[in-house]
Amino acid sequence: MSCNSFGTLFRVTTWGESHGPAIGCVVDGCPPQIPLTEEMIQPWLNLRRPGQSKFTTSRNEPDRVKILSGVFEGKTTGTPISLLIENTNQRSKDYSNIAQSYRPGHADIAYDLKYGIRDYRGGGRSSARETAMRVAAGAIARLILGDQITIRGALVQIGDRKINRDRWSWDEVKKNEFFCPDGEMVPQWQDYLNCIRKQGSSIGAVIEIVAEGVPAGLGAPIYGKLDSDIAQAMMSINAVKGVEIGEGFNAATLRGEENADPIYVNDGKLSFSSNHAGGILGGISTGQPINVRFAVKPTSSILIPQPSIDSEGNATDVITKGRHDPCVGIRAVPVGEAMMACILADHWLRHRGQIGQFRSSILD
Amino acid sequence: MSCNSFGTLFRVTTWGESHGPAIGCVVDGCPPQIPLTEEMIQPWLNLRRPGQSKFTTSRNEPDRVKILSGVFEGKTTGTPISLLIENTNQRSKDYSNIAQSYRPGHADIAYDLKYGIRDYRGGGRSSARETAMRVAAGAIARLILGDQITIRGALVQIGDRKINRDRWSWDEVKKNEFFCPDGEMVPQWQDYLNCIRKQGSSIGAVIEIVAEGVPAGLGAPIYGKLDSDIAQAMMSINAVKGVEIGEGFNAATLRGEENADPIYVNDGKLSFSSNHAGGILGGISTGQPINVRFAVKPTSSILIPQPSIDSEGNATDVITKGRHDPCVGIRAVPVGEAMMACILADHWLRHRGQIGQFRSSILD
Amino acid sequence: MSCNSFGTLFRVTTWGESHGPAIGCVVDGCPPQIPLTEEMIQPWLNLRRPGQSKFTTSRNEPDRVKILSGVFEGKTTGTPISLLIENTNQRSKDYSNIAQSYRPGHADIAYDLKYGIRDYRGGGRSSARETAMRVAAGAIARLILGDQITIRGALVQIGDRKINRDRWSWDEVKKNEFFCPDGEMVPQWQDYLNCIRKQGSSIGAVIEIVAEGVPAGLGAPIYGKLDSDIAQAMMSINAVKGVEIGEGFNAATLRGEENADPIYVNDGKLSFSSNHAGGILGGISTGQPINVRFAVKPTSSILIPQPSIDSEGNATDVITKGRHDPCVGIRAVPVGEAMMACILADHWLRHRGQIGQFRSSILD
Amino acid sequence: MSCNSFGTLFRVTTWGESHGPAIGCVVDGCPPQIPLTEEMIQPWLNLRRPGQSKFTTSRNEPDRVKILSGVFEGKTTGTPISLLIENTNQRSKDYSNIAQSYRPGHADIAYDLKYGIRDYRGGGRSSARETAMRVAAGAIARLILGDQITIRGALVQIGDRKINRDRWSWDEVKKNEFFCPDGEMVPQWQDYLNCIRKQGSSIGAVIEIVAEGVPAGLGAPIYGKLDSDIAQAMMSINAVKGVEIGEGFNAATLRGEENADPIYVNDGKLSFSSNHAGGILGGISTGQPINVRFAVKPTSSILIPQPSIDSEGNATDVITKGRHDPCVGIRAVPVGEAMMACILADHWLRHRGQIGQFRSSILD
Repeated sequence: MSCNSFGTLFRVTTWGESHGPAIGCVVDGCPPQIPLTEEMIQPWLNLRRPGQSKFTTSRNEPDRVKILSGVFEGKTTGTPISLLIENTNQRSKDYSNIAQSYRPGHADIAYDLKYGIRDYRGGGRSSARETAMRVAAGAIARLILGDQITIRGALVQIGDRKINRDRWSWDEVKKNEFFCPDGEMVPQWQDYLNCIRKQGSSIGAVIEIVAEGVPAGLGAPIYGKLDSDIAQAMMSINAVKGVEIGEGFNAATLRGEENADPIYVNDGKLSFSSNHAGGILGGISTGQPINVRFAVKPTSSILIPQPSIDSEGNATDVITKGRHDPCVGIRAVPVGEAMMACILADHWLRHRGQIGQFRSSILD
Repeated sequence: MSCNSFGTLFRVTTWGESHGPAIGCVVDGCPPQIPLTEEMIQPWLNLRRPGQSKFTTSRNEPDRVKILSGVFEGKTTGTPISLLIENTNQRSKDYSNIAQSYRPGHADIAYDLKYGIRDYRGGGRSSARETAMRVAAGAIARLILGDQITIRGALVQIGDRKINRDRWSWDEVKKNEFFCPDGEMVPQWQDYLNCIRKQGSSIGAVIEIVAEGVPAGLGAPIYGKLDSDIAQAMMSINAVKGVEIGEGFNAATLRGEENADPIYVNDGKLSFSSNHAGGILGGISTGQPINVRFAVKPTSSILIPQPSIDSEGNATDVITKGRHDPCVGIRAVPVGEAMMACILADHWLRHRGQIGQFRSSILD
Repeated sequence: MSCNSFGTLFRVTTWGESHGPAIGCVVDGCPPQIPLTEEMIQPWLNLRRPGQSKFTTSRNEPDRVKILSGVFEGKTTGTPISLLIENTNQRSKDYSNIAQSYRPGHADIAYDLKYGIRDYRGGGRSSARETAMRVAAGAIARLILGDQITIRGALVQIGDRKINRDRWSWDEVKKNEFFCPDGEMVPQWQDYLNCIRKQGSSIGAVIEIVAEGVPAGLGAPIYGKLDSDIAQAMMSINAVKGVEIGEGFNAATLRGEENADPIYVNDGKLSFSSNHAGGILGGISTGQPINVRFAVKPTSSILIPQPSIDSEGNATDVITKGRHDPCVGIRAVPVGEAMMACILADHWLRHRGQIGQFRSSILD
Repeated sequence: MSCNSFGTLFRVTTWGESHGPAIGCVVDGCPPQIPLTEEMIQPWLNLRRPGQSKFTTSRNEPDRVKILSGVFEGKTTGTPISLLIENTNQRSKDYSNIAQSYRPGHADIAYDLKYGIRDYRGGGRSSARETAMRVAAGAIARLILGDQITIRGALVQIGDRKINRDRWSWDEVKKNEFFCPDGEMVPQWQDYLNCIRKQGSSIGAVIEIVAEGVPAGLGAPIYGKLDSDIAQAMMSINAVKGVEIGEGFNAATLRGEENADPIYVNDGKLSFSSNHAGGILGGISTGQPINVRFAVKPTSSILIPQPSIDSEGNATDVITKGRHDPCVGIRAVPVGEAMMACILADHWLRHRGQIGQFRSSILD
């Protein structure tokens, strides 16, 4: 059994291997009459696109998205939207040396254990290339959510170097190659990653996604909680090893009175004095910003030899010579944003219904 | 839309409110011919049962489980298993003072925002009492998995007091009231929690669940990954704010060569030199132990007044006088084990099929 | 794998065996704030209840439904509604003779082939007793749909004796023991069924369900079509062998111009000159009445010996001595109505959303 | 909400409009290591392909299928299989006259009622062109089922002209343009359809699908019954108005002893003296052949003017000038076969599991 779909009412099915002819997705459940063109999806793909700086893989894919169905005269029709990106820059020969051996930390061996066969070229189905389709689907999800909901992501930690949250600037995020909200941290990260890259190594990172303007009431007890669906979505991104919401793991160290978010009414509007909860109580959004962080492990594809075995079980050292990201966490930022957008769009449709209720914004 | 089911082939649906006549669940998809009696479920419920020490709520529920269907002459028949626990010790009057006001950090206000109505008695549907049914379902899941898979949990941190992992003993876990694997930490935690309890406060905790003997191949790319399903499952437990697998958030600080798990063959058996991955690669189990940790926030129900509002929006101070756990994380240990068992049973059935393939153990 | 749930947003899970301690269901996804008491469900159960005439099984079950969750102070809360009916009149000894042999036409042998075990008492899980829970769930579905949708069923054929449709009277349906809309047919059917009953035989029937007031737009292409979901629902009822919508099988004999339903506007309202389509085009409701018919085979449980085998494979003659219906189709009428109600409620919630949009009627 | 997927473990998602750039599907859950090439799918598509005789639409589409993912070195990998067929022969101008008016009996008006927008070219999403992808998916399903299961379909009735079942020949089915199993009926149908075609009219039909070699045990009570899933699948095919299994509607006229299928053991093998049940008891396959019939209404697209309205509500006469089938039931035969194959493959995977258990045939 394979499981290449997620979502209930806004449902995304992705397909494609890293070095096949194309990758794609089907977005099912998008409401009708939403203006949609390829140009409205492309900018989000460009943010994730590789080959844009020396800190991301040099595989240079234009990642041009095509809409094959579900849109008529520039508007969605309520029927499934098929999106396709052709793979153009496949240098499969790079991977010939790993056809018969397992890269430690990679899914190679797991796919062989499960299926007894794998498309080894570039990681095949397990390649992070699949996340391009998440970003494309996320672009559609954002259109469903409308302008009053903003979903933004940032890189808040590379290795043990964390940003200073007092210097947080969303404008800064757009200006640097790291999606870093702390301008003073940027040169430090540049030096640090340069060093790691030159050593043929890689490093982990932490990403934070913030959704603002989310209306109260999204999420459904008990097994459709908004936070548990977000956790599943983020953990499904390649290389993610942990997810936390609001105070997250720090909540373990707090007392009840420290972690409470006192409630008051301000100018006729429900308000909270703090947001330890990260915008979700009992699995349901409260109207506060939703804060999620996830940890990405260092890329397993490194130039430093790793002890491993070949498919016969013989010991061998594996060096991954392909084009890879020294910090795969950087490109995970737009992916995390897209997953948040998809989950929110799904819960929004579940909460409000789709037809007749759809408006240009979530708040009317 | 409510979502009170989880799992695909092994599917659990829970129902019931804290102070209604009963709580229950339907376990659908259990293979036939598995010996099952109420006595095989009860011990797991007893581990979660409240009223057993001064560190858990004094609500004393016998939590006697009844099997209402799906079992014939002591064996499962393949039809849905209905389990029911009557609520006997409901002291609803304790909650009369919170009928009209919202406890900060609780789901009260979220349910009202979503549904415009809530059963306020003891938290109603959002009460952790629901987790009793997860434990009951988990007991059945364990029977599906068989003896060669062990799923064990432990409390590894209360507040900022972490156990010493060098002193880890599974035997010790069974001996103390904290599920603590570090015997020397137990008296410290006792003093610490006594102090917190006397202050009418509460404290967070971290739980670790370890599954050993899990065969390789469980989990399905891309949106049925074993780790993302585990993350969703753990995050769905009341008060959980973070989930991590293997190195988890620490992976962000590691280099590729530090985080790699070298592969070798030992005595004809696939082996790994380390387990930073936590037993899962590409969303698929590798045969290594699966290590998961989750953080539980401090109980929101405390005796220290919290600023809040009533249902009219007027400011009020809320004190929760009901019977509550100073550290709700303690009782989350058997719940986390149960969720792990349910997720593994579901993926095991997905992987191997159910009929004809079911054996007393997963490894034959 | 068992599959004891149906519906997407309005989701019903049933459990229980004919001669177990109880049967029940969980209704998940019912919108909040709908007035609901046991007294609002009971009348529908009474219509299906056995033991009411000599033409239905003499098993006399009071079929008292209990609500165990999801309702607070007389209103639904949006959480799962657990319903339970205790089995009180189990005469299991009636079935002792079929414990080791297979009744031809019954599910006995199929369950054994699939599961290798079966609760043989009264058919166990395969008993039509399960349909009581469908009726109970249907009663809730009706409350979601509101007063402007009417769902009514009738028996239109027993054996080869069809009613005269020109004499159709819904009032008549309520007056006789057959749910027969043709008063002149009633005495004929009485004589006919008396004869069959005395011979220890049974006979098939055709049921028609009509839903009026259904708004346009329910149903979703391509695999969530309203008619295909209705077909699945009706075919899931015990003993049903065929389902048709609108003209049904007769459509095969018609020409395009005969089968077309011309469209016009009458008094500002969309209208159709005929309803060959049965109210559904392209899987989507058009606002016309939905007409569905399904055929029920004769009860397999008869007093006339049938050649069969025992569980060892030895030839044996089977006579079913239990209490059975000579025409099980009669009691299928309220079940068919209930399935229609459940499917419509599910599609209605899918179409309009649940929260904020719920009204006392579907048409505002 | 749109619902463009069906199946649980073998899951097919289709997309595409009649006159968009392409149509396609994603087949998720196909087991690994099955030999698969485009050439193994194409012959089935050719059977359904239009433009092959004067009795089917003259739209001449080569319907060349491309595999875009999920296959590596000629074998399935367990990852999703993306299939695509480019639309090449779109004569959209044919449909310009129906852009603003509703064809009676067509889905046009239903889509507008539901979505407020529709791709009117050739029926858009509601076109029977979508069924090409069902046939493609069915070809893969057949590979999963293996050689010992045969799934064959035939046209058994056009208008009121039924075949003589005594002359049934599967060989004959392959020889004529009607999939007719009764050679003597072929010239009659030719004359009849010629006459209807010349009148610019259309006619309905009945299709029968027979699956032989299906192992016992497929299908799951209560809401995953094999027959109810088949009913849903067949009813989802364009223009289908009725589905019946085994005796079907005729069962209503039979007595219990007439409809029973006596059981015996023949040469150590479970056998039945008859097959009124159509191979399914209690929703579970018994090993007997599965017989299903479905009725297809006459094509709504005819040259005879039909009273209708335009999108402003003004009265108008509609003539459909596009290229259409006088008897759309003919091309429904391979579609019905494909749906049967998909449903059986899904239930087979549910029943036996996918990995490790997959064999070249279902019977080992």
